Amino acid sequence: MSQRISDEVVASALGESRTGPSSGRHGNALAHSHKVGSPPRKTLFEDIKLSVKEIFFSDNPVKEFKDQTLGRKLVLGLEAVFPILRWARGYNFKSFRGDFISGLTIASLCIPQDIAYAKLANLDPEYGLYTSFVAPLVYAFMGSSRDMAIGPVAVVSLLLGTTLSDEIKDFHDPNYLRLAFTATFFAGVTQMTLGVLRLGFLVDFLSHAAIVGFMAGAAVTIALQQLKGLLGIVTFTKKTDIISVMRSVWSTVHHGWNWETIVIGMSFLTYLLVTKYIAKRKKKLFWVAAIAPMISVILSTLFVYITRADKKGVAIVRHIKKGVNPASAGEIFFSGKYLAAGARIGVVAGMIALTEAIAIGRTFAAMKDYPLDGNKEMVAMGTMNIIGSLTSCYVATGSFSRSAVNFMAGCKTAVSNIVMSIVVLLTLLVITPLFKYTPNAVLAAIIIAAVVGLIDIEAVILLWKIDKFDFVACIGAFFGVIFKSVEIGLLIAVAISFAKILLQVTRPRTIVLGKLQGTSVYRNINQYPRASQIPGMLIIRVDSAIYFSNSNYIKERILRWLTDEDVQRIGSEFPRIQYLVIEMSPVTDIDTSGIHAFVELYKSLHKREVQLLLANPGPIVMEKLHASKLTNLIGEDKIFLSVADAVATFGA
Amino acid sequence: MSQRISDEVVASALGESRTGPSSGRHGNALAHSHKVGSPPRKTLFEDIKLSVKEIFFSDNPVKEFKDQTLGRKLVLGLEAVFPILRWARGYNFKSFRGDFISGLTIASLCIPQDIAYAKLANLDPEYGLYTSFVAPLVYAFMGSSRDMAIGPVAVVSLLLGTTLSDEIKDFHDPNYLRLAFTATFFAGVTQMTLGVLRLGFLVDFLSHAAIVGFMAGAAVTIALQQLKGLLGIVTFTKKTDIISVMRSVWSTVHHGWNWETIVIGMSFLTYLLVTKYIAKRKKKLFWVAAIAPMISVILSTLFVYITRADKKGVAIVRHIKKGVNPASAGEIFFSGKYLAAGARIGVVAGMIALTEAIAIGRTFAAMKDYPLDGNKEMVAMGTMNIIGSLTSCYVATGSFSRSAVNFMAGCKTAVSNIVMSIVVLLTLLVITPLFKYTPNAVLAAIIIAAVVGLIDIEAVILLWKIDKFDFVACIGAFFGVIFKSVEIGLLIAVAISFAKILLQVTRPRTIVLGKLQGTSVYRNINQYPRASQIPGMLIIRVDSAIYFSNSNYIKERILRWLTDEDVQRIGSEFPRIQYLVIEMSPVTDIDTSGIHAFVELYKSLHKREVQLLLANPGPIVMEKLHASKLTNLIGEDKIFLSVADAVATFGA
Repeated sequence: MSQRISDEVVASALGESRTGPSSGRHGNALAHSHKVGSPPRKTLFEDIKLSVKEIFFSDNPVKEFKDQTLGRKLVLGLEAVFPILRWARGYNFKSFRGDFISGLTIASLCIPQDIAYAKLANLDPEYGLYTSFVAPLVYAFMGSSRDMAIGPVAVVSLLLGTTLSDEIKDFHDPNYLRLAFTATFFAGVTQMTLGVLRLGFLVDFLSHAAIVGFMAGAAVTIALQQLKGLLGIVTFTKKTDIISVMRSVWSTVHHGWNWETIVIGMSFLTYLLVTKYIAKRKKKLFWVAAIAPMISVILSTLFVYITRADKKGVAIVRHIKKGVNPASAGEIFFSGKYLAAGARIGVVAGMIALTEAIAIGRTFAAMKDYPLDGNKEMVAMGTMNIIGSLTSCYVATGSFSRSAVNFMAGCKTAVSNIVMSIVVLLTLLVITPLFKYTPNAVLAAIIIAAVVGLIDIEAVILLWKIDKFDFVACIGAFFGVIFKSVEIGLLIAVAISFAKILLQVTRPRTIVLGKLQGTSVYRNINQYPRASQIPGMLIIRVDSAIYFSNSNYIKERILRWLTDEDVQRIGSEFPRIQYLVIEMSPVTDIDTSGIHAFVELYKSLHKREVQLLLANPGPIVMEKLHASKLTNLIGEDKIFLSVADAVATFGA
Repeated sequence: MSQRISDEVVASALGESRTGPSSGRHGNALAHSHKVGSPPRKTLFEDIKLSVKEIFFSDNPVKEFKDQTLGRKLVLGLEAVFPILRWARGYNFKSFRGDFISGLTIASLCIPQDIAYAKLANLDPEYGLYTSFVAPLVYAFMGSSRDMAIGPVAVVSLLLGTTLSDEIKDFHDPNYLRLAFTATFFAGVTQMTLGVLRLGFLVDFLSHAAIVGFMAGAAVTIALQQLKGLLGIVTFTKKTDIISVMRSVWSTVHHGWNWETIVIGMSFLTYLLVTKYIAKRKKKLFWVAAIAPMISVILSTLFVYITRADKKGVAIVRHIKKGVNPASAGEIFFSGKYLAAGARIGVVAGMIALTEAIAIGRTFAAMKDYPLDGNKEMVAMGTMNIIGSLTSCYVATGSFSRSAVNFMAGCKTAVSNIVMSIVVLLTLLVITPLFKYTPNAVLAAIIIAAVVGLIDIEAVILLWKIDKFDFVACIGAFFGVIFKSVEIGLLIAVAISFAKILLQVTRPRTIVLGKLQGTSVYRNINQYPRASQIPGMLIIRVDSAIYFSNSNYIKERILRWLTDEDVQRIGSEFPRIQYLVIEMSPVTDIDTSGIHAFVELYKSLHKREVQLLLANPGPIVMEKLHASKLTNLIGEDKIFLSVADAVATFGA
C-alpha cells in the first residue's frame, strides 16, 4: 500500500527541479581537494560472500589452510579438531609437574562435589563420578582452553533435577535415568550443532548482567535445597521456590530436624567456609580450601563409621556402585513420549552449560592471552556430552570453582584434566565403597560452600555503578529464579537482554554538534559546553545505522531538533536556521525504509525552506544513496567530506 | 561464575602499575587546549526520566500543556483526543467543496468494494457497508490524518476470513459472525492499548520490505480466490495457497465453469483495468477509475435483471439486508471457548490494520507536511474498532486505494470521510435491495482490479537495487503468503526483520582510518584509497554502542585488525604497531560486558606491547569509564579529544 505512494514520492521528488532557498549560491562546493569517496560497486556475489564471512567466519578459520599441500591440510585439519596434537609436541616435564599437581588438587575437590551434585540432579552418586571421568578425557583432546576444569556443575545439575522431575516424578523409576541420558545426548547435539553451524554468537545474547543474577539466584535456590540434608529433614518439598522451601523447613522445626545431623553439617560447613575465607584473603593458601571438601568427607565418614550415627537418624550415602561407567547408548530415548521432553530439556541445559563454559574459557584465555575459538569449543563440548551420554554421564561443562583452583594450582595444559580423570577412575575402581558412611549433611555443606562463590555481590555493585539497566536485568533474573523457578529466571534474563537490544535499535542517539573554538573539530554541545553552534546552521550527528526499526524515529527526532532550536533561537542574535547538516560518519548502513525516511525528511525541510547537507557518508551509504538516486535529489554538491567542509561552504 | 573472575581481572588490572612500553614518554599529552568533556553525573532519577522520555514520549506530547490554566488544559486535552475540535474552527466553504467532492468519489468507490470485501471475510455483504458507515465517522472526530479513507480493506478481510474459518468451518453458523465481532473488539483493544501505553514504535518492527512482499503475496492470494466468482465455479477449495487453488480451478475446467459468468466477469474486469491504466497514465483522469466500480455494478446489475442471467447459473448477491447497523454488543464472546480465539485473531488483525493505517497516514502527512502522532492515531483506530464491534462492523482501517483517490480528488480534512459515511448510510437506508441482482463475477472483478494495486513491482526492483537483504525479506514474505498462508507469510516477514536487527547488533562495523593528505581529517581507508596510515599506529573506528551482544566480537575484531596489519606491515618500511587508537565517536553507550571486553582488550594489547589510546568518547561512555575506574587503567592521558590529537601526541 503506502510503499507505492512513497515510491511515487521518491519519483516525483526526484523529478522536481531542486530550487531550494539558496541552491546554486555556492558553486564552489566541489572546489575542495577531497571528494566523498564512492568505491566501485561490489557484485552481488562479493557482497553476500563478505557478509556471510563476517557473520559466521569473522575469525577467518581457514586462513592457515591456504596455499598448503593436501597432506599438510589434512594434518592442519586434524590439529584443528584435536588441538592436543598441536600442543602435545611442545609438552615437557616442567609443564607436566604443574599439570600433575593441579590435576590432583582438582580431583580432591571434584570427587566430593561430584557425589553431591549428582544428588542435586536426583541421580545416584556414582553418576557424578562417571561424568568426571569420561567428559574431562574427551575435552582434553578436543578443547582449546588450558585452564578449564570439566565435570558436573551445580547449576546445570539443579536445572536437570528440576526439569527432569517435572516429567517423571519418581526418581527411582528407571525412565528417570534414561531421560537424563537423553537430555545429555541432546545437550551435546545442541552444542555441537551450534559450533558446526558457527552460531556460537548466540550465547552472547545472554548478557553478563543477566548471568550474574541468574547464577546468584541459582546459588540461593541450591543452598536452600541443602537445608534438607543439613538439618536432616525427611519429608521435604520438591518445589524450588524460596517460599515453598522455607515453609517446608519451618513446618518441620518441631519434629523432623535431627540434631546429630545438624551438629555434623554445621561444623563441617563452618570449617569449609573458614578455609574458603582464608583462601580468599591469602591467595597462596588456595589449597587449604581446595582440599577441605575431601578432608570433610574423610573425617565425617570415619566419624559416622565409628559412632554408627546412622542408626541415630543421620542420613548417609548408603550405597555407591563400584566400577567404571557402564555403557548407556541403549538407554537413550530415540522414540516414544519422552523423546520430545528429553530434547527440550537437553537444548536448555546445553545452552546454559555452554554459556558457563564459554564465559570461563574466555576469562582465562584473556588472563593468559591465548586464542580461544568459541565455535571449536562448542564442538568439543558437544562431542564430550554426546560421548558422555553413551557412557552413563550426565551433562558436563566447565566448573567455575574448580577452574579457578586449577588455574591457581599452576596448571599449564588440559593434561591436568587427564590427571583428574585418572584419579576419579581409580576412585571408582577402588575406594567408592568407602563412601557408604559419608553423611548427606557433609555433602550438603560442600554444596553450600561451593555455591556461595556463585553469589557475586561485588559484580552486582559494579553493575549498579556502571549501568542501571544491567542492574535491573540482574535483579530480575535473580528474583525470577528464587521466587519461581530456574526456567522462569532464565526466561526473564533472556527477555530483559532482548528488550535492551530492541531499545538500542529503535531509539538511537542523535546529538547536536558545535564547533570547538580555534579548531575545525565539531563535538557534542552537551558534553562540551564551550562548543559553539554556527549561525543559520544546525549540525546533527546520527549514531546508528538507519534501518526500518528506527528510520521514522530518526526522521522525526531530527525535525524536532530543528523545531526546538528554531524556537530557542527566536529573539537571540542568531538568524533562522537555513541549513541542516547531518554528520553521517557513524551511519554504517541504510536500508530502503531509511531511504524513504530521508526522502520524507528532505520534503519536510524543503517546505520549511531549510537545505539538507550531508557530511561524510560511508561507502555503503554512498552506494545506496546513488542506487536510489537520492544523491540527485539532495544534490551531489550538498554532500561533504566533513562537517567543517560543509560549514566552510555554506556557513555564514 | 566467570564474572567473578572477570571482576578480579578488573581489580588486579587496576591495581597493577601501568608500565606499558612507553608510558610517560609523552608527558605533554594533556597540553592540548580542549580536554575530553565529562559532564556532571546525572542522578539515577534524572537518568531514568530521560530514558523513559526518549523511549515513550520522544514527541514530547505534553509540551503545550505546560504553564496553562486548568481550564485551558482541559480544552487542550479535549482537543488532543478529538482533533476535530481544533481544525473545525478554521473550517470554511472552500475546504468543504474539496471534501464534498472527494467524499462522493470515495463513496462511489467504497460501496462496491465494501460488498466485495465482506465476501472475502465470509460475511454477508451488508457488514461491509456497516463498517463503512460507523468507522469513518468515529475516525473523523479522533483521527489526525486529513487524507486517510477509512473502511474495510482487502488484506484484513482476507486475514479475518481465513483465520475465522479455521475456528468455525461453517460461515452460516451464527457463532461465525459473533467471533468476527469478538475479533474486531480485541483488534480495537489491541490498537488502543498500544496507543495508550505509547508502544506505537512496535509497528516499526515490520520492515517496509517485508510489508511490500506480504502485500503482494496477499494480493495474489486474493486475486486467485476470485477465480471462483469470475469463472462461476461452484465447489471451490477453502485453502488459500496457490497450489490448492490452482488444482481446484483446473479440476473444474470441464464441468463447473459457467460461460455466462465468465463473459460478464471478464468484460468488466477488462473495463476496470483499462480505466485503472488510463488513470495511471493521466493523473487528472483519476476519477475515471474511481467511479468505474460503481458503473460496473450498476451496468451488470441492470444486465442481469433484464436478461435474468441468474437463471442460467450466474451467481448473484441474492440478498442484502436493508437498514442501518443493528447493535452487536451482546454478540461479542466475553467468555467461553471462542474468547481466546477471538482475542488471538483480533491481536493479529489489529496489528496488521495498524501497520497499514500508520504507513498510509505517514506517507500523506509527509506529502502535505503536517504532523501525525502515531500513538494518537492508534487510540483513534482502537476506539473506532471498539465502537465498530458494538455496532455490527468488522475490522476497519485506512485503505490504500481509496486514500489515494481521496487525496487526488482534493480532500482537505476528515470531513470527506463524514460525507462518505453519510452516502453509505443513505445507501443502506434506501438502495441496498437494488444490489440483489449484482453478479458475484463483477464483485470478483472489482476485488482483482483493486488488489492489483498492492503488487508493487517497482518497489521490489528498488529493494533489489538498494538492499539485497531487504529484497530477501520481501520475497520470503511473498512466497510464505502464496505457498502457505497469510499468517505464515507474516511470520516469515517478522522473523526476517528481526534477524536483520540481530545481525546489526551482533556484528557492528569496525573500520581502519587513515589521514587525508594535507588535512587533519581521518577517513575509512577503503573508501578513500588516498588516505594514508600513520607509521607505528593503527586507528580503528567502532561504529556501534558496545553491548553484551557485540562486546566480544568487537574485542576480537580489533585484535584481528591488529594481527592482520602487523603481518601486512612486515617487510614494508613501516615500523611495528605500537599504538592502537580507537575512535569512539559513534560509541553511544557501553555496558558492563563492554567494560569487561575493554579490560580484556587492554590486557591482550599489554602482552603484545601495544598501547591503547581512545579518541573522543561520548559523555555516557566517559561516565561509565570513570565509574568502572577503567580510565585509571588506560590512563587519563591516553584519552583524547580527537584522533588528530592522539596522533599529534604519540605519532612518530
